Amino acid sequence: MNVHAPSRPCLSSFLVGGEPCYGLVRDNGIVDLSARHPWSDLRQVIAAGKLVEISETAAGLGTDYAFDDVVFTIPLSASEKVICVGVNYPDPGGEHADGQDTPDYPSLFIRFPRSFVGHRQPVVCPAESPQFDYEGEIAIVIGRPGRRITERNALSHVAALTLCNEGSVRDWLCHGESNVTQGKNFDSSGSMGPWLIPFEEENQIADIRLVTRVNGEVRQDDRTSRMIFPFRKLIAYISTFTTLVPGDIIITGTPTVADDRLNPSSYLVPGDVVEVEAEGIGILSNPVVGER
Amino acid sequence: MNVHAPSRPCLSSFLVGGEPCYGLVRDNGIVDLSARHPWSDLRQVIAAGKLVEISETAAGLGTDYAFDDVVFTIPLSASEKVICVGVNYPDPGGEHADGQDTPDYPSLFIRFPRSFVGHRQPVVCPAESPQFDYEGEIAIVIGRPGRRITERNALSHVAALTLCNEGSVRDWLCHGESNVTQGKNFDSSGSMGPWLIPFEEENQIADIRLVTRVNGEVRQDDRTSRMIFPFRKLIAYISTFTTLVPGDIIITGTPTVADDRLNPSSYLVPGDVVEVEAEGIGILSNPVVGER
Repeated sequence: MNVHAPSRPCLSSFLVGGEPCYGLVRDNGIVDLSARHPWSDLRQVIAAGKLVEISETAAGLGTDYAFDDVVFTIPLSASEKVICVGVNYPDPGGEHADGQDTPDYPSLFIRFPRSFVGHRQPVVCPAESPQFDYEGEIAIVIGRPGRRITERNALSHVAALTLCNEGSVRDWLCHGESNVTQGKNFDSSGSMGPWLIPFEEENQIADIRLVTRVNGEVRQDDRTSRMIFPFRKLIAYISTFTTLVPGDIIITGTPTVADDRLNPSSYLVPGDVVEVEAEGIGILSNPVVGER
Repeated sequence: MNVHAPSRPCLSSFLVGGEPCYGLVRDNGIVDLSARHPWSDLRQVIAAGKLVEISETAAGLGTDYAFDDVVFTIPLSASEKVICVGVNYPDPGGEHADGQDTPDYPSLFIRFPRSFVGHRQPVVCPAESPQFDYEGEIAIVIGRPGRRITERNALSHVAALTLCNEGSVRDWLCHGESNVTQGKNFDSSGSMGPWLIPFEEENQIADIRLVTRVNGEVRQDDRTSRMIFPFRKLIAYISTFTTLVPGDIIITGTPTVADDRLNPSSYLVPGDVVEVEAEGIGILSNPVVGER
């Protein structure tokens, strides 16, 4: 596996022999940190404010596992909330540039953790639909609790970054009159990972490139500096109504899509491989399978 | 407190000195079952399939607490999913009767447990809105896991019943273009309880009356036999996309509302008391307070 590990620590959750573990990912394998620390998962590490510190404890240790020895899981499997943002980048033509078509508020929906699989695990194209689709997004993980957080203070509540393929079942998105819940929550229809990158400074997210590829072909390609609702605004708005707590995940919205989105041949089919890549975070890669 | 306890066992979650407990509610107080069994909360009891059995162990025991000794919490505070159904009863005029205006699918959205308070606890009218509203609903609790459950088998997956005031912030429901998430998730804006009633036979829900009162005045009044999407259909449809697990809650939709719903004076204000009552389940009662 080419891990494309960024220069910052990469903290991953995974199974070894079916047992949940977490550790530090290096080019040549994984250092098992769960065996060396009291916290049972990365959510507890984040709540304790120790994400960077435990990374540093790996210095001088060899790797415990090769990549093929582990099954990657989503970085946080027991988040209290996974809040997703609707399309959050203007059309490439820039018609949002004058502000005329910009919505006043983000559209928000919820996904259950069981709608996601980890890095390299198969996402499942449901038997009920021929319209299985990808959406590449950047996810932020809350480290510090807060309600009615100001935009100014917003980033001090972020502990980590990861990536998401917010896999969607297009026809089921339209079942409910005013909600997309069912098309966004098929079991194992999306993915999160490949790992958490500790968030330490705004330039990690201020203007990074986000790319989605299907079978190596670029399908989405945008930069976070163009987000309609930037990270600070999302945190401030969401925390107006709900208290954010450590381990909460905000999946910050997808770029608009290539022109062929409505072409049936652009939907995902078993055998496809979806990759979501962002500068400084990594590459989340998942094969597509059909229902067994 | 008049507990209006039904003839079946009433299992409640509550705090004593800040510590979470569960027990059996009687007319004169509560028998503490959490001190006498190995499960730490009612979700674990349900997962073990012991809801009826633990009720029976209270026979011969006296009550441990008076009602004023405890703070009621929502029956299950760590459900994996709380799935809510949009308006699910036809207009009183019956225009859905010929099927013409009946939607094909239910509208579904998600609430976080922290958007609810327990029986008798204050629901909080948010500072951000003058449009705070009630919705009385029946909630079902899943006891047995399943995916793609048939309508025929659906009720065998239900462990218990409870009630919900699905408090909503009307103007915030319209913020997102295609989602109601934010108007449904203000902290402490709704309530669940007063307790769980074990589900043992279909006539507990087939045709029961559901009433919502504000300050004693009836605002919603309907019967479950009129539901647009009946309980069996909801379980079958939802489990098409997501695996239901023990402790999951489906809040099954509200009746349409009194004609004065759009009259600003019908919104809730601090000092109001909202009651949701259903035959055989109980009365969920909550005062409304403003932001502190």
